[in-house]
Amino acid sequence: MTELKTTQSIPTTLHLRSEVQPSDVQDVRRIVEASQFFSAAEVDVAVELVQERLQKGAASGYEFLFVEHPVLDQDRLRQQVIGYVCYGEIPCTVGSYDIYWIAISPDHQRNRIGQQLMQSVELAAKKLNARRLYIDTSGKPLYTPTRNFYVRCGYNIACELADFYAPGDSKIIFEKAIPPH
Amino acid sequence: MTELKTTQSIPTTLHLRSEVQPSDVQDVRRIVEASQFFSAAEVDVAVELVQERLQKGAASGYEFLFVEHPVLDQDRLRQQVIGYVCYGEIPCTVGSYDIYWIAISPDHQRNRIGQQLMQSVELAAKKLNARRLYIDTSGKPLYTPTRNFYVRCGYNIACELADFYAPGDSKIIFEKAIPPH
Repeated sequence: MTELKTTQSIPTTLHLRSEVQPSDVQDVRRIVEASQFFSAAEVDVAVELVQERLQKGAASGYEFLFVEHPVLDQDRLRQQVIGYVCYGEIPCTVGSYDIYWIAISPDHQRNRIGQQLMQSVELAAKKLNARRLYIDTSGKPLYTPTRNFYVRCGYNIACELADFYAPGDSKIIFEKAIPPH
Repeated sequence: MTELKTTQSIPTTLHLRSEVQPSDVQDVRRIVEASQFFSAAEVDVAVELVQERLQKGAASGYEFLFVEHPVLDQDRLRQQVIGYVCYGEIPCTVGSYDIYWIAISPDHQRNRIGQQLMQSVELAAKKLNARRLYIDTSGKPLYTPTRNFYVRCGYNIACELADFYAPGDSKIIFEKAIPPH
């Protein structure tokens, strides 16, 4: 067991990586589990998307951005993943992108990293000719901070599907139109 | 090239098959292409779902019902696939099912086979503890008969996402609550 010490300074611009590497499988599991927002089944799905990207490459339809942060690991500086987003063009659409998953390590959630990551994914999707971005979440009270976060990021509620996830647990679809170049 | 002659009588109850077999790959391609409602990319996706079911079994998350109809093939009677539906529980939900694909061979679309197939999929999903069924389609005029068909089958419009499939081509999400046992 290696003890990790995070450095004190938070970078004002994010260190982002879009290439997916095998170690991301365990990093995504760690971050998604630590967030405590997701069920065991949901954690498995998050991990499967990484595995599918590793196996199929771009043909998987899943794109990633990983936020890395320097940590001291046995007196050596290395990059640790502290958050990530998984997104991709929705099959059978032209330029509609879904943000399938976004999670930030709890230690770093107060540093506006989430908002910077959302801006980064919008820019990355725009380069891929995205016209619209969608992101789903639950209507349950637990997710009020999540919904407020999407509103702060400029997303509008497109619709709410009652009892979607489970009885009494609706799905809310947020959308954002990306201005053309 | 074998000439196929369809029998004149239309069965009042459908001959349904839920097991997926390798020949369904080409049958689904034939039926979905013949409907002329789907782009080449959409046809490929429809076929991929069959292939994924063949490879992964129930773990694929895709269930099927195939409608078979007897035809005379070189003086022998055999079952020909004339329509199908692909459905499954939506990942990370409890009892929400999506009807991913439904298509009936054009020769058979006037025989209420579509409505019978929708009733059959609802019964099959209910046996799997489905609470709600969802089905998406386009808001374009080409799909007016499709949308009317879903309304006749008892589905309600849950929402419309503007410009979802392409600029000017919205997605309409239909839903139906399945009464508990």
